[in-house]
Amino acid sequence: MKFCSHCGARLDQRIPSGDDRPRFVCDRCQTIHYQNPKIVVGTIPEWDDQLLLCRRAIEPRSGMWTLPAGYLENRETMMDGARRETREEAGAELTTLAPFALFDLPFISQVYMMFRGPLASTDYHPGQESLEVRLFAQADIPWNDLAFAVVRETLECYFSDRNNGQFKLHTGTIVPPPGMPRQPHCQ
Amino acid sequence: MKFCSHCGARLDQRIPSGDDRPRFVCDRCQTIHYQNPKIVVGTIPEWDDQLLLCRRAIEPRSGMWTLPAGYLENRETMMDGARRETREEAGAELTTLAPFALFDLPFISQVYMMFRGPLASTDYHPGQESLEVRLFAQADIPWNDLAFAVVRETLECYFSDRNNGQFKLHTGTIVPPPGMPRQPHCQ
Repeated sequence: MKFCSHCGARLDQRIPSGDDRPRFVCDRCQTIHYQNPKIVVGTIPEWDDQLLLCRRAIEPRSGMWTLPAGYLENRETMMDGARRETREEAGAELTTLAPFALFDLPFISQVYMMFRGPLASTDYHPGQESLEVRLFAQADIPWNDLAFAVVRETLECYFSDRNNGQFKLHTGTIVPPPGMPRQPHCQ
Repeated sequence: MKFCSHCGARLDQRIPSGDDRPRFVCDRCQTIHYQNPKIVVGTIPEWDDQLLLCRRAIEPRSGMWTLPAGYLENRETMMDGARRETREEAGAELTTLAPFALFDLPFISQVYMMFRGPLASTDYHPGQESLEVRLFAQADIPWNDLAFAVVRETLECYFSDRNNGQFKLHTGTIVPPPGMPRQPHCQ
């Protein structure tokens, strides 16, 4: 961020009066440009005992497997956004959704909200951002080829709950293990 | 948003190729400026059977009562942000926190994450954005002078759960009633 999006002047970065952290400040129109975390919404699409995963067609982590997820849009609820991302990336519709996991990813200033729910049918196909979309039983999940730490954590929580016979809402902070990329998703 | 924050050129608003909604696009440096919902984090501070509310010193809804809450900052977890806002607005520290409510406010492109938990002590005082900070028993909650619909909903869920003897995590979409302001919080 170098220029003011309101008036086009060059920005300064400093701690505004009454604040406690550096912000981008415009000395011409006095606008303070705050930057805040983004919300990623996604789903765990179920079909009997199988889950639908997408193989990424885009960087980062192109070729690796992930759950359908992406940035929440303005004027959208989290559940609507999760359905939209599932439609866009996996060509799939879901029936009822339940909140499943809400994770902080402070190292990349993101919050992930994941829902789980049954597919409406086996009518699915890869969208622009996916190379392939496939159902996996628990024994076949490609654990070594998952795109992001948050996807691994979500799937581990899911199978743990399912094997215990009760789904909970999971919260917590994701710390990327060494070798996992710091940027999980592009818009 | 009129100017590109990367290069200072005037922006155009149009649907980029491969997208499905209008974005601010820079024709000079090709940057697409996405705009996404913000996360507001806050708390329900408990002291025995009373809750701590703040009377707002700033617009919108100056003079009305609210729960301590504000925008999540980059590189911050939601729980840390909720503690920080409680410190800033109510001069109060909390012990353990539990997730209590996660609400969509699509009409203002916000998501509210509210935690509940006991105050560490009765050492509290109004911060810069509060006129007054006070403990209220359920019978004394100023229902007619609450600042925002999301605060009313959070308190109604809280007392309902408490009276039923069990706290749950609440989710849902807030629709502002007529007369309630559409903009709940400033940074």
